[in-house]
Amino acid sequence: MTSSKDKFRLPKKYRGFSTNIWNEITNLINQYKPLNLGMGFPDFPPPKDVTRVLSEVATDENFLLHQYSRQFGHLRLVNALAKFYGMLIERDLNPHKEILINGTGCQALFTPIMAHVEEEDEVIIIEPYFDFYETIVKIAGGKCKFIPLRLKETNSQKNAQSSCEWSLDKKELENVFNEKTKMFILNTPNNPLGKVFNLEELTIIADLCKKWNVLCLADEVYEFFIYSPNQHIRICTLPGMWERTITTTCPGKTFNVTGWALGVAYGPENLLHNLKIVENDLPFVSTPIQEAFAIIFEQEIKRFREKDSILVSLPRDLEIKRDFMVKTLIEAGMKPVIPEGGFLISVNWKHIASRTGLKLEEDEAKDFQFTKWMIRNIGLAGIPVSAFYSQKNKHLGEDYIRFCFLKEIKTLQQFADITKKLN
Amino acid sequence: MTSSKDKFRLPKKYRGFSTNIWNEITNLINQYKPLNLGMGFPDFPPPKDVTRVLSEVATDENFLLHQYSRQFGHLRLVNALAKFYGMLIERDLNPHKEILINGTGCQALFTPIMAHVEEEDEVIIIEPYFDFYETIVKIAGGKCKFIPLRLKETNSQKNAQSSCEWSLDKKELENVFNEKTKMFILNTPNNPLGKVFNLEELTIIADLCKKWNVLCLADEVYEFFIYSPNQHIRICTLPGMWERTITTTCPGKTFNVTGWALGVAYGPENLLHNLKIVENDLPFVSTPIQEAFAIIFEQEIKRFREKDSILVSLPRDLEIKRDFMVKTLIEAGMKPVIPEGGFLISVNWKHIASRTGLKLEEDEAKDFQFTKWMIRNIGLAGIPVSAFYSQKNKHLGEDYIRFCFLKEIKTLQQFADITKKLN
Repeated sequence: MTSSKDKFRLPKKYRGFSTNIWNEITNLINQYKPLNLGMGFPDFPPPKDVTRVLSEVATDENFLLHQYSRQFGHLRLVNALAKFYGMLIERDLNPHKEILINGTGCQALFTPIMAHVEEEDEVIIIEPYFDFYETIVKIAGGKCKFIPLRLKETNSQKNAQSSCEWSLDKKELENVFNEKTKMFILNTPNNPLGKVFNLEELTIIADLCKKWNVLCLADEVYEFFIYSPNQHIRICTLPGMWERTITTTCPGKTFNVTGWALGVAYGPENLLHNLKIVENDLPFVSTPIQEAFAIIFEQEIKRFREKDSILVSLPRDLEIKRDFMVKTLIEAGMKPVIPEGGFLISVNWKHIASRTGLKLEEDEAKDFQFTKWMIRNIGLAGIPVSAFYSQKNKHLGEDYIRFCFLKEIKTLQQFADITKKLN
Repeated sequence: MTSSKDKFRLPKKYRGFSTNIWNEITNLINQYKPLNLGMGFPDFPPPKDVTRVLSEVATDENFLLHQYSRQFGHLRLVNALAKFYGMLIERDLNPHKEILINGTGCQALFTPIMAHVEEEDEVIIIEPYFDFYETIVKIAGGKCKFIPLRLKETNSQKNAQSSCEWSLDKKELENVFNEKTKMFILNTPNNPLGKVFNLEELTIIADLCKKWNVLCLADEVYEFFIYSPNQHIRICTLPGMWERTITTTCPGKTFNVTGWALGVAYGPENLLHNLKIVENDLPFVSTPIQEAFAIIFEQEIKRFREKDSILVSLPRDLEIKRDFMVKTLIEAGMKPVIPEGGFLISVNWKHIASRTGLKLEEDEAKDFQFTKWMIRNIGLAGIPVSAFYSQKNKHLGEDYIRFCFLKEIKTLQQFADITKKLN
């Protein structure tokens, strides 16, 4: 008989996975307690309009709000979301058939990939990418095909880049599609660069998805963090794309309550049907959280695009912080990639590497070494950007570190004080 | 190129699954609005001590309670659970390594099965069983081996049975184990019968798990609903079983807030390690819900086994309701299976079938036909028990219907009024 140790080893489908980059950095952060601009969540309270709602739901006289909700989404929430996203994409959304609630923002990605990717299917992923995509595609039995955003080599003397200077090479993009391509994962605004794909770029992607009969999974989790003059365009609104797009988002990101753990997917009934089969086995999402989000979306529908809307005020406040970060990083001698959207900023640190005295080893990605050096030596935490690249292309991200600026002004000033020392 | 319809069909691993029994019954219930004793949740408010806590957490000045929590479980919660379950199983539990928080009670089952069941592994499941087990084992690529609880054929003249009269045949049990057996799923108290496995029965199972080097997944979601003189014995406390048992439970069931959607798994570090790899990809559980449960468990630790403990008062109140149900069902001419635990009661309806005028067809399970007849004709909803059996053994459950008695006295009186008409 096999030994207990051998018998209880990890099933094949999960081998090769381990605790990921986030855990490694988290452990160092717990040890050194640096100023933490690593993970993407705020260090200030969520809007009172948001937390108050949850508090009221918890003691609402409708005590059924504490019991199992309708499978696939609490009715009040899917109704609110159908109205809200229906308004945004100018299409009547059926709350029962075209909207699905998931356990977390991550699960809103897990389910569509599991529900559509078959053994041997190819899935196209744009680099840099949220590492979670790759993991799920592998669990589903699919194959990842990576295509990097490439930095246009113009104006290398500038002290900053924009995320719009990173783009897909059209020929390279055409070549990555083939008969086996099942899914294209689009993340706009992109994590970690903050790139907001423009209409021309989206049209090229859409045309290829249509040509090759490919499903587009649009991860739009940062959809409400867009800086002028950019506009967030939902690829599902392009001609012929609704019927082949599943859009996912995460209200917890939108309303600064990442811990509320709720994801949303919307798309045509036939594509969501597969997701429901998968969700059948992971059925329930916290009902009080769903009710609270329903009320919050109802509030936002009432004050849509008005100045007291959270969706208006959050990005307005954040744009000031983004500009502060850009200025601070330039002053520190680093070259930021100015994000068009999101609340993350990537920055090229190689210009200051020589000043730090850090000796780079050959056997580990340089940005990992720099990140660890920062945590240990100057008390600052970011995320190494090569973590967002496939093994083959890690060199494309090694010169960059990502910081989150969804932080109090006070925190960003501390950040400025620390980075000043680098120059 | 394949057509869009063919290309976007369900991946092989999910084929054969569809919306399940719960959805079918739910749809009928929505249409006919019967008295609903189908699903296992209360129709009365949760304890105020419970809902008040969530309300307070939502507006707590520690606003980080609204952001991502520690992966694998919010620190305050795993600490409280380690203390609480450590006390119950008389073992020091390491909150960081031996406890894992999952998205829902269902996910607390999904993760251990996915994390341990390899292609072609055999998993033993006792019938009747929660249908979800079978689904996950199949998704994981394993094979289900069913073994039914058999009713001792004594005293068929009695007007009631006890769930303790349903037991495993020892020879049959021995024969279901072999070299390929990876996991044994034990559900005690059992859903739907309410059987509480006694020490002798558990010892036989434990010895076989040890003999064949098998992992025991103990689903103890009804652990705090036990009626005197029965005692809930955790199989992980039997000699040599800790190292091969993962125990799962669901505080939402325990505290009458099924909608809070949180599951718990505890067991030895090496067995939980696999689960962490799987959870890495489905990371986050609502932080305010976790904080609220932490506080609730801390309250319960302080008043452990005292009369104002929720864990004492809930089953005490429920026992009165169980006894009321038994009396009501006997008076209606049906033969209940008196549950030793849980808040579900199965009842043999065949004695009254002829009185109802229902014509039974051959092409559908009889209990399904009776359930639908009840919903449509007498305004009462239960769950057909054959749904808890494998295809081969459905005939063993066909004579039974399951009702949930976690309901207000007023509801149970309405139940009595309706069933009285049957006699």
